[in-house]
Amino acid sequence: MTYTLVLLRHGESEWNAKNLFTGWVDVALSEKGVEEARRGGRLLTDAGVLPDVVHTSLLRRAITTANLALDAADRHWIPVKRSWRLNERHYGALQGKDKKQTLAEFGEEQFMLWRRSYDVPPPEIELGSEYSQDADPRYAGEPVVRTECLKDVLDRALPYWNSDIVPDLRAGKTVLVAAHGNSIRAIVKYLDGIDDETIAGINIPTGIPLRYELDEDTLEPVTKGGEYLDPEAAAAAIQAVANQGR
Amino acid sequence: MTYTLVLLRHGESEWNAKNLFTGWVDVALSEKGVEEARRGGRLLTDAGVLPDVVHTSLLRRAITTANLALDAADRHWIPVKRSWRLNERHYGALQGKDKKQTLAEFGEEQFMLWRRSYDVPPPEIELGSEYSQDADPRYAGEPVVRTECLKDVLDRALPYWNSDIVPDLRAGKTVLVAAHGNSIRAIVKYLDGIDDETIAGINIPTGIPLRYELDEDTLEPVTKGGEYLDPEAAAAAIQAVANQGR
Repeated sequence: MTYTLVLLRHGESEWNAKNLFTGWVDVALSEKGVEEARRGGRLLTDAGVLPDVVHTSLLRRAITTANLALDAADRHWIPVKRSWRLNERHYGALQGKDKKQTLAEFGEEQFMLWRRSYDVPPPEIELGSEYSQDADPRYAGEPVVRTECLKDVLDRALPYWNSDIVPDLRAGKTVLVAAHGNSIRAIVKYLDGIDDETIAGINIPTGIPLRYELDEDTLEPVTKGGEYLDPEAAAAAIQAVANQGR
Repeated sequence: MTYTLVLLRHGESEWNAKNLFTGWVDVALSEKGVEEARRGGRLLTDAGVLPDVVHTSLLRRAITTANLALDAADRHWIPVKRSWRLNERHYGALQGKDKKQTLAEFGEEQFMLWRRSYDVPPPEIELGSEYSQDADPRYAGEPVVRTECLKDVLDRALPYWNSDIVPDLRAGKTVLVAAHGNSIRAIVKYLDGIDDETIAGINIPTGIPLRYELDEDTLEPVTKGGEYLDPEAAAAAIQAVANQGR
């Protein structure tokens, strides 16, 4: 017997479309993102993958993606749990900045270090500034986050994985996690045992459910990397990202 | 000190618009219903009523209403709990039937008895028929419901009120309940101590949040009937229903 975990990265957001660093800024899905979410739900139905419970971040683009995908899959009625620990990586002082301008201002090397290094976070965001979340009521009572590298994301996601997601898996539930590029990369790094350098080259396509079957004793993936429910679209999206820098 | 409860009836559904008995049939909101839900969220914001937790039924029209209203109120990230005990009244064998045809077939007296009496349920639905939910996975492990009168709705909603809603209220949370005409009427009957005859004349308008401030010791309403966040629109909608039979 195996346990079923499905990871779903939200569809395109309004700031993806504008090429801005988003992080914890709570932007909405674009029209394309809405369609991606619905299509993700249809892929669940077509594959016969029926989530019994969904975990989301506290950010609108993941929450809306979960709502739309589950509605399309006729599973809108399942229990929901939410945690900031599934949020996108906090992008620090880069939040709200244009990616091209940032690249021009700081140069390729620094830019790629912030984007892809495992343990170098961007500069901290100024508290009280427009794109800081230090006064946001949804994070009241939690530690104030001012910037994060991918290692920070894994460090804060893992306690939630163990406290909330693992018990649902061990109860035999099919678990859907609707989250973000970097919180999903963190979970994938942990599950697949990917090293700190290799994870830099791993990208998660938007809106395509990624299914893992996990060994019932060890919770290790039966197949490393899992299986995208639309493998061709996933391969094309991953290739497109790889080509971006060329 | 008082506790704040907000009751929100879902917006117009596709079957409201078609004048069919709906009950537990899981239809979607109409375009008008989507707009009503968003407007309900803006009314919450305008009144400064910020839900800390939301309770919904297991039916799409209430779930979507909660999703859209909370998104509009920037409270999409709050915890969610769902229960079949907040579902609309099960309309038995009438589910899926045209209201006008039913009136013509059974006559005014029988029709009004089914619609408005406190303790006379419609005939039971046939198990396995198109509009029965006996095989629906969301109700697995629960008693099979084949028809309900309003009394039945109160009898199954009250345990959930006590086990799940009251603890949230007593923790000082502003509680939103996104539900249905009859599950909200049942809660209102209980809170306001309305007798079995009078409740027949109480109608809940769609999409307008109804706020109750509850005494912190007794949980009785400080003001009987609560307060609609748009009292003029609520009064007009209630008057429209009262005029329907004339």
